Amino acid sequence: MKKTTIHEIAKALNINASTVSRALNDSERVKAKTKDMVLTKARELGYTRNMLASNLRRNKSNTIGVVVPRISRYFFSSTIAGIEEMAYQAGYNVIICQSLEEIDRERKIIRNLMANRVDGILISVSMETQDPTHLTECFENGTPLVFFDRHVAGTRQTGKVLIDDVQGGFEATEHLIGQGCRKIAHLTAPLDVEIYKNRHKGYQSALKKHKISYDKNLVLVSQLSKDDGYRQAAKIVEELEGVDGIFSANDFAAIGAMNYLKERDIKIPDDIAITGFSNEPTSAVIEPALTTVDQSGAEIGRLACNLLLDYFENGTALVNDKTIMLPPKLIVRDSTQRKNYAFEL
Amino acid sequence: MKKTTIHEIAKALNINASTVSRALNDSERVKAKTKDMVLTKARELGYTRNMLASNLRRNKSNTIGVVVPRISRYFFSSTIAGIEEMAYQAGYNVIICQSLEEIDRERKIIRNLMANRVDGILISVSMETQDPTHLTECFENGTPLVFFDRHVAGTRQTGKVLIDDVQGGFEATEHLIGQGCRKIAHLTAPLDVEIYKNRHKGYQSALKKHKISYDKNLVLVSQLSKDDGYRQAAKIVEELEGVDGIFSANDFAAIGAMNYLKERDIKIPDDIAITGFSNEPTSAVIEPALTTVDQSGAEIGRLACNLLLDYFENGTALVNDKTIMLPPKLIVRDSTQRKNYAFEL
Repeated sequence: MKKTTIHEIAKALNINASTVSRALNDSERVKAKTKDMVLTKARELGYTRNMLASNLRRNKSNTIGVVVPRISRYFFSSTIAGIEEMAYQAGYNVIICQSLEEIDRERKIIRNLMANRVDGILISVSMETQDPTHLTECFENGTPLVFFDRHVAGTRQTGKVLIDDVQGGFEATEHLIGQGCRKIAHLTAPLDVEIYKNRHKGYQSALKKHKISYDKNLVLVSQLSKDDGYRQAAKIVEELEGVDGIFSANDFAAIGAMNYLKERDIKIPDDIAITGFSNEPTSAVIEPALTTVDQSGAEIGRLACNLLLDYFENGTALVNDKTIMLPPKLIVRDSTQRKNYAFEL
Repeated sequence: MKKTTIHEIAKALNINASTVSRALNDSERVKAKTKDMVLTKARELGYTRNMLASNLRRNKSNTIGVVVPRISRYFFSSTIAGIEEMAYQAGYNVIICQSLEEIDRERKIIRNLMANRVDGILISVSMETQDPTHLTECFENGTPLVFFDRHVAGTRQTGKVLIDDVQGGFEATEHLIGQGCRKIAHLTAPLDVEIYKNRHKGYQSALKKHKISYDKNLVLVSQLSKDDGYRQAAKIVEELEGVDGIFSANDFAAIGAMNYLKERDIKIPDDIAITGFSNEPTSAVIEPALTTVDQSGAEIGRLACNLLLDYFENGTALVNDKTIMLPPKLIVRDSTQRKNYAFEL
């Protein structure tokens, strides 16, 4: 079915197409009576404004591109909800893409977003993204880019909205020490991914502060799925002696580990205390409820989107190389609260 | 920063813009050597293809609009992930919008998607959407529309991908009866919302089949949040005598109800057995694990997107008034499995 054009409205009313165009754009050069007439006829003919045409004239699409590893992860769907909320208020559309943790797919997505002339890009990178060339090219082509949560360190000319992962890792680990844990294993993803590197750094510095020596055999690397956590817990129990605490860099692996420990009747938190990271909805529901670090996805999304909107209004100076660092929030629940230990550090 | 145009490439190479355009479009009318030269120069100048321009020429945007009540709900983020997966393979972008359960916002979103000339719309409507005028207008304007999950009954000229909610409600309720429940309360949302109407219908017909009389005092209506479930469970325990089973039309309210029952030391499933609906991730983790009905969000998303892609390829005949009905899947867990009852109906 064909879309109604302003030419058809003009013909039906026997006036100029340019008058119709001005009337639809609420121009002061058109009388109120004419405006009413045009709007009525436009509705009657089922006319809808063609944003494509005006986008092309302005060479912008009124669209923000958002790239996340996986849409269905709660943290990312929360950030997307926060982004959409701000973008909607400001009159922008949001195109959502998922890299599925693959760098090739991420590169393709970025090329496509550029070809579609998005006004800006918000990205949380894949686990494979170490070389940020495809991202720095965005800025060189005039498209501003803001990282949120997962970022590539050292990329200039971008904005960043991050959680202080070092602090988060430090607080989670120090909390375990305060509960009497002295041999703390750390479940993590590859340490060349910035956020995991930083959580690991926080883990190390808490150990150091409390004079517990760092043992790299206690640092177990995986993709941090629930199954990974289950397997790592088995390894901890069967191969590593005397572990009394686990700091997992996400909640999925922590929950997998808890499932193993519960199957083996190992008491949480008295035999092994455990903390996660991210405050996934399941972490509050599992028994015992999981101590974790809250990241507030919706807030990160809103701030990242705002940073981009700032750029649209005020140009690059305010945004580039700007990092907004949010404080993490340790949420203490039953998986770490030992009865015979008070938090005295 | 300005984007490089084909005119600048033409000027730099001292050839025609139309030759550059043909070379970039891989036309047979341009020699391989010229193509190489153009591509090299295009890369050098940072040229990216302008999809806006070609979209305008074709009067389509290569974009699918998706409207859901809330992006951060697991069921919806799973459908979005499924939609994005299929759209990506077919070379379409996905614009995601959330109605936040408000009809006014949903109307605005649809107008905006139409103005942006999306090629089609996938929608799961808000709880307030009873009048589908804004949706039927899409088709009248040449934009195909497919409902998934939450739909408006009786809308012609649309495709639908649905879960058989009547069957789901029936199976959940019959399962409770099979566990010995004889006074079953039903937590639901307003019954003019199609999916809740159908789940309630399934509840009624299971009672009828097993000669249990229907008592409308046992049907409790709310927005089905966790807090609503908690409050309704309190009402069931304090005001309604002898309830021994609860069928909740979603998992959130079921989990809220379980929290109340656990606080009051009412045994699940022996005193009150309980089932939810949707298979949210938390339902598997709570103790006892919650019996629920799986909806397979990712699969619904893939099918809905495919129906739209079918339309793009083959025109309206195959899609309009087509309904794909998926069977629900009852997942039996500990919240209903009474030790002294076998499932014999």
